[in-house]
Amino acid sequence: MTTLGQPLSIETTPIDGLLVVRLQLHGDARGWFKEHWQREKMVALGLPDFGPVQQNVSFNAPVGVTRGLHAEPWDKYVSVANGRAFGAWVDLREGDGFGTTFHLELAPDVAVFVPRGVANGFQTLEENVNYMYLVNDHWSPEARYALVNVADPTADVPWPIPLAEAVVSDKDLGHPMLDAVTPVRARET
Amino acid sequence: MTTLGQPLSIETTPIDGLLVVRLQLHGDARGWFKEHWQREKMVALGLPDFGPVQQNVSFNAPVGVTRGLHAEPWDKYVSVANGRAFGAWVDLREGDGFGTTFHLELAPDVAVFVPRGVANGFQTLEENVNYMYLVNDHWSPEARYALVNVADPTADVPWPIPLAEAVVSDKDLGHPMLDAVTPVRARET
Ligand SMILES: Cc1cn([C@H]2C[C@H](O)[C@@H](COP(=O)(O)OP(=O)(O)O[C@H]3O[C@H](CO)[C@@H](O)[C@H](O)[C@H]3O)O2)c(=O)[nH]c1=O
Ligand SMILES: Cc1cn([C@H]2C[C@H](O)[C@@H](COP(=O)(O)OP(=O)(O)O[C@H]3O[C@H](CO)[C@@H](O)[C@H](O)[C@H]3O)O2)c(=O)[nH]c1=O
Repeated sequence: MTTLGQPLSIETTPIDGLLVVRLQLHGDARGWFKEHWQREKMVALGLPDFGPVQQNVSFNAPVGVTRGLHAEPWDKYVSVANGRAFGAWVDLREGDGFGTTFHLELAPDVAVFVPRGVANGFQTLEENVNYMYLVNDHWSPEARYALVNVADPTADVPWPIPLAEAVVSDKDLGHPMLDAVTPVRARET
Repeated sequence: MTTLGQPLSIETTPIDGLLVVRLQLHGDARGWFKEHWQREKMVALGLPDFGPVQQNVSFNAPVGVTRGLHAEPWDKYVSVANGRAFGAWVDLREGDGFGTTFHLELAPDVAVFVPRGVANGFQTLEENVNYMYLVNDHWSPEARYALVNVADPTADVPWPIPLAEAVVSDKDLGHPMLDAVTPVRARET
């Protein structure tokens, strides 16, 4: 049994509440094993006790599938099950942080906690990438998201694959640029 | 947008409480999207409201990785993120059902709810399969499992790849045969 990669740790980012979770992989002749989400250990390290009620998976066949940027009205815990993807986030919450961006490469040993109001997107860097995430509210077709265009020039996300070669849904091509986005207000409790 | 496969449904099996969940995949040019676990819809269809606190992933590099058969002291919701695996279950709970077995092929459009006390195992049918599952209690190195050997002649699981060619951990090779297993007692509430 070998330990691949680092011990479990959680890092902050320039976006308030957006957290990078480094995961430990335990390797052996079969492959590896990981605790992808572990409430008790991760809450002790600073992950919110977010209480997921849904797990989604998207399968992305071609290289360069680009999905986003979506700020749903719930928190998300995102990663890839296999392969590599470029992840990007833009803060759409009202206040000083509005428009702050962050990006990193997603692989099986890293996950990201995305608080509600922060727009989430990714681009696949290999074929056949399964992207998966946990959320703490149920999606419905009527759910209203805050959205920003993947090509927004202010956020200026450095997508590794030029958007002209990327595979983007018609819906995602229609999202507004940052200067037309209404900032997401803090939730009334 | 095409719909691949069947609408969401839940089926019972010969093992009491072991449920097969058929998942809907929404296909498009990018690949597909699925709700892998959706508390509200699935509870309405009969899935227990099991309250996961941990998500695990195992990566299985060679064909024929065989893991099991483990009856942990918590419920599990298991499937593959990608690829195909043969899943097998043996009821280790005391009572008339003790020793009842069930098997099916796991693929991204099927998940299985495994109640505590039922031993879980699988064998990969392709290279590079990511197997993932949600559980409703935290694992610890001291956790005591009920275990039964993958080669047990009574359960007689029809593994597609002969065990002589399978990749099995030393730990899993050491588990007892069914006639030496102490049945798992119902939990005191
Ligand atoms: C988000 C969601 C979608 N759907 C359905 C609606 C569509 O038929 C199909 C795909 O939905 P789309 O809206 O195109 O999904 P997509 O562009 O991949 O975006 C989703 O998945 C992305 C990750 O793949 C997330 O980053 C987005 O926030 C999320 O909205 O799945 C569900 O049935 N349940 C869901 O939770
Ligand atoms: C189950 C579990 C294991 N581990 C560690 C202990 C070891 O260093 C490494 C692999 O553990 P093993 O006991 O060999 O895991 P494995 O044989 O794959 O069995 C586990 O994973 C199987 C699926 O891959 C499940 O069907 C089993 O019930 C589960 O116990 O991961 C964790 O850190 N957390 C866990 O939750």
